[in-house]
Amino acid sequence: VCTSGVFGDRFVDIIAAYGAQVVKLAADWGQPIEPAQLAEVLAANPDAGLVYLTHNETSTGVTNPLQGLARVARDEGRLVVVDAISSASSMALAMDAWGLDVVLSGSQKGWMAPPGVAFAAVGPRAWEVVERSRSPRYYFDWKSHRTWAEKGFTPSTPSVSTLFAVQEGVRMLREEGLEKVYARHRRIADATAAGLQAAGLTLLAREGYRSATVTSAVVPEGIEVEDLRKLLSSRYGVIIAGGRGTAKISARIVRVGHLGAVGTGDIVEVLWAIEQVLEELDHAPSDGRTLAAAQPLLTSLTEAVGTR
Amino acid sequence: VCTSGVFGDRFVDIIAAYGAQVVKLAADWGQPIEPAQLAEVLAANPDAGLVYLTHNETSTGVTNPLQGLARVARDEGRLVVVDAISSASSMALAMDAWGLDVVLSGSQKGWMAPPGVAFAAVGPRAWEVVERSRSPRYYFDWKSHRTWAEKGFTPSTPSVSTLFAVQEGVRMLREEGLEKVYARHRRIADATAAGLQAAGLTLLAREGYRSATVTSAVVPEGIEVEDLRKLLSSRYGVIIAGGRGTAKISARIVRVGHLGAVGTGDIVEVLWAIEQVLEELDHAPSDGRTLAAAQPLLTSLTEAVGTR
Repeated sequence: VCTSGVFGDRFVDIIAAYGAQVVKLAADWGQPIEPAQLAEVLAANPDAGLVYLTHNETSTGVTNPLQGLARVARDEGRLVVVDAISSASSMALAMDAWGLDVVLSGSQKGWMAPPGVAFAAVGPRAWEVVERSRSPRYYFDWKSHRTWAEKGFTPSTPSVSTLFAVQEGVRMLREEGLEKVYARHRRIADATAAGLQAAGLTLLAREGYRSATVTSAVVPEGIEVEDLRKLLSSRYGVIIAGGRGTAKISARIVRVGHLGAVGTGDIVEVLWAIEQVLEELDHAPSDGRTLAAAQPLLTSLTEAVGTR
Repeated sequence: VCTSGVFGDRFVDIIAAYGAQVVKLAADWGQPIEPAQLAEVLAANPDAGLVYLTHNETSTGVTNPLQGLARVARDEGRLVVVDAISSASSMALAMDAWGLDVVLSGSQKGWMAPPGVAFAAVGPRAWEVVERSRSPRYYFDWKSHRTWAEKGFTPSTPSVSTLFAVQEGVRMLREEGLEKVYARHRRIADATAAGLQAAGLTLLAREGYRSATVTSAVVPEGIEVEDLRKLLSSRYGVIIAGGRGTAKISARIVRVGHLGAVGTGDIVEVLWAIEQVLEELDHAPSDGRTLAAAQPLLTSLTEAVGTR
């Protein structure tokens, strides 16, 4: 299991709960896993059959180089299972072309629906393993889901209203076009990053690995994350996340989510509010530099992909 | 496992999937399990530690004598697990007083919310077993749910919108009062039964064991269940269920659901439409006898518990 944060660690817990032996490859907080690191771990663990990857780690705002990691795993004949919960439909992900065997996502992320439905896309090599598996399961028995799906049903009653919402989300994604959806997320992330830096925050993730769906940043010295969040929420109706996990740094970071039905206006609102709050906290005057820094990217976004 | 239909059988499948040895006590189609039958099976299987009961079997429209069955199991020192999915909050059920150790339900039934959330109420004797259990689990790990619940959270993202709907459902139940809710379901069931019989159908479940939330009946000879259902749906917008399970009789039954936010008007609509359709199918003239039979019960319902 390659883990670069809270959700990668959760993958470790899930797999361990079912009795599997787990080798953990952990990135430093805010850093990605590099393909070379994975190659080393695989060489040292010839018995490891499955490689678990987190595409986008929301706890740190890092997007791992999925294509490169998957290539290493596939070249070594391992199966690749991907947590794409907060990336699928918001960032490029090519299951077949990149050799991914299982891809997981959830209705409440890029699909723009409420939470309630998890998705598992399962490739042919993974089905072979499923057939051989003796691990007890009932509710999450993919074979049973496949059998019922062929008749247009599910094994038990699903969150039907969520599925209707997902259907509408998929319609919206098709209307906009996936390439435009990806570009919109990327530019909004870049604009958010530029704005937060101008506001005096330090980006947590390294350039080139910054998530397109969530931006994480360390708040300036002297600012308490909780004060910032409370003012944002109570005065401006803007909700951003604090840190996750036990690492010390998590108490110093904020995370701005920008996934799904997010447009330029949303991010303008958030960045403007952050600048106002930093002035209220006597950190820096509100002089418009935050939006000024984000502006060029937001403008090009509007021109390129519409105002959505 | 006491099973009186499709959902009892599913309980057998679930438990067997996790490697437990299952003793199955099956009622005939449309019949309940009697406490004396359970006492016999328990005497013959001294090692059986858990007794699984279906309170209300929706596939046959039978309500099992839960209190009596639980008493037998408790007197023999066994734990009692109850599928109360389609009964809890619609029919009387006293977890502590009746000695039930685990009670299960789902948001889409008497709670009047969309599907998406399952409920498990777990008593102290069941918690002891959970502590000892070595069966692998992650998502359905009740201990983890309990730990997070103490902090006001869930272990992972639940179907949040469904939970809000359940909250509103509980408010509605409290406003009406549970005793009135139970009475409303019982009288609507009795009115439905009287109406269906007057229309020429034969009730499947024996008197005294007829469900308060779903009424099952065998259609008259010469009538195809599918024809009846299609006409009801296309001409009158009334959707009733066909049979479930593999038994031959399931192709001959219909099931009228009347659970949750159901009132006298709903059942008048259904019974009236059934009479119209039976005339269209050249079975019997539409002369009003179906509603005439249901009328006294519906009137007393309106007087007793309001028109809801």
